[in-house]
Amino acid sequence: MAEREVRGGGVQIVEVGPRDGLQNEEKALAVEDKVELIRRLVAAGLRRIEAVSFVNPRRVPQMAGAEEVMAGVERLPGVSYIGLALNRRGLDRALAAGVDEVNVAVPATDGFCVRNQGCTVAEMMDAFDGIAAACLEAGTPVSVTVSTAFGCPFDGETPPERVAEIARRAAAAGAWEVAIADTIGVGVPRQVADLVGRVREAAPGAVLRCHFHNTRNTGYANALTAVEQGVTVLDSSVGGFGGCPFAPAATGNIGTEDLVYMLERGGSATGAELGEVSRTAEWLGSRLGKTPPAQLSRAGAFPAGG
Amino acid sequence: MAEREVRGGGVQIVEVGPRDGLQNEEKALAVEDKVELIRRLVAAGLRRIEAVSFVNPRRVPQMAGAEEVMAGVERLPGVSYIGLALNRRGLDRALAAGVDEVNVAVPATDGFCVRNQGCTVAEMMDAFDGIAAACLEAGTPVSVTVSTAFGCPFDGETPPERVAEIARRAAAAGAWEVAIADTIGVGVPRQVADLVGRVREAAPGAVLRCHFHNTRNTGYANALTAVEQGVTVLDSSVGGFGGCPFAPAATGNIGTEDLVYMLERGGSATGAELGEVSRTAEWLGSRLGKTPPAQLSRAGAFPAGG
Repeated sequence: MAEREVRGGGVQIVEVGPRDGLQNEEKALAVEDKVELIRRLVAAGLRRIEAVSFVNPRRVPQMAGAEEVMAGVERLPGVSYIGLALNRRGLDRALAAGVDEVNVAVPATDGFCVRNQGCTVAEMMDAFDGIAAACLEAGTPVSVTVSTAFGCPFDGETPPERVAEIARRAAAAGAWEVAIADTIGVGVPRQVADLVGRVREAAPGAVLRCHFHNTRNTGYANALTAVEQGVTVLDSSVGGFGGCPFAPAATGNIGTEDLVYMLERGGSATGAELGEVSRTAEWLGSRLGKTPPAQLSRAGAFPAGG
Repeated sequence: MAEREVRGGGVQIVEVGPRDGLQNEEKALAVEDKVELIRRLVAAGLRRIEAVSFVNPRRVPQMAGAEEVMAGVERLPGVSYIGLALNRRGLDRALAAGVDEVNVAVPATDGFCVRNQGCTVAEMMDAFDGIAAACLEAGTPVSVTVSTAFGCPFDGETPPERVAEIARRAAAAGAWEVAIADTIGVGVPRQVADLVGRVREAAPGAVLRCHFHNTRNTGYANALTAVEQGVTVLDSSVGGFGGCPFAPAATGNIGTEDLVYMLERGGSATGAELGEVSRTAEWLGSRLGKTPPAQLSRAGAFPAGG
């Protein structure tokens, strides 16, 4: 796990570009491009990276080659690579590949869980208990991401108490960190403040992380609110790639470079180097043949060169 | 002036699409399209609309036909049309055209003022004194927008005390409302909180309005911070049109539909009808041949149909 993970007064960014950023892109990156992307992100100062997903590559071809990616990345002190696993088979692959951390996504709504993960939320929570126990035994930190925490494309509004209950159970099962994720980008700041309070109460021993999509242009305001509420860990994706499969024309994750700009210019250290992140966004855009949805690489830093 | 201008707990939106939204677009809209745009905005519930600019149409061809636009729009109780004027000649045109309110932009930095308005800030403030006196005599409310308040493409960082001083002088000269504008979209929430405090202290009798661009994805977070600081009037542009001439590839004003989504879902009434605003953004996009930078018309409301 990263040593510099939470600095005083700072915000730790979990860079999810190689996983959430890529998994909905039409074009699947080659293993060597994924390794190069991760190398550039580490060089830009990012210290926790959601690098791979151990889902079935026949279902999500963009995530194929997870073992090869993990074998290809340089292991450095203070840099933590996170692997996503949704079941025991994925976990076994993740542990064999030597990830530094395991993350498990548990949707808060059955409509999404059944379609995305082929089981109900209750079944997924049972699966999490088993995964968490195996992680504890293996000595690998495990975190949970509560997806569709702010709304579900199938079930509509998500009852916040359900999010809190999943957080409580996951923490009790061994999750050291609990994330609330606005998977489809419908959340607004007031919801962030409400959910942060509820999850903190439900899982007081866990580190709280937030994951926002900018699908409706609320993502950065949500991130700001999370930080104002004392959240110190935020997910973001270099270039803002990561479209939502349920809103194909819309942008995806909040972008790392735009988040770093807002936070650093506002006085919160992130450890990331803005120019390097921005250039990595441009490089990734060129590999994907797309303009980054995040804006800093186009608009430029301010003051210029800063 | 609009009767419903500031409701309890609500936020009043000044729709700047017909002016700031259009003035940097490559394609100039015909007068009848501008009139139709304004008709649709009023039908969507917007009550203060920056409708026209009385600048030299040879310098800004997109703003040609201001008199014809004012002659073409329907005058309705509670609906206020704002005309921008930068000098005495523009003011005379604005008053003759029968605008409900006059707005004057006063840059906070000489670099921008000289290039954009052909005079220094000190000269522009002197001009404002004359414009304000004439407005008071004519019985037409006059407001000031302090542009480049968060940063200048030529002079770099803007000293906040300069913004406060312009606000103080403008209020003393008769401005009933003072806006701080992030013309080039470099501001961050911490700056918003700082500037709001300073301007409020400098011009305690004036209504405070904020104007944000989303050039670096900080616009909505800035709007949120302004509202949290008690600001009750925000500028936005339907569709988020209004690119900055100094960052050609970047998006412009914060978009009205995305702002309405964030505010209304967060419990702040705006009086605007989200679906109608969103459809107006699509309509304007079709007239300009561009996809709106704001995202709601692509991503859809949440819950669906809401």
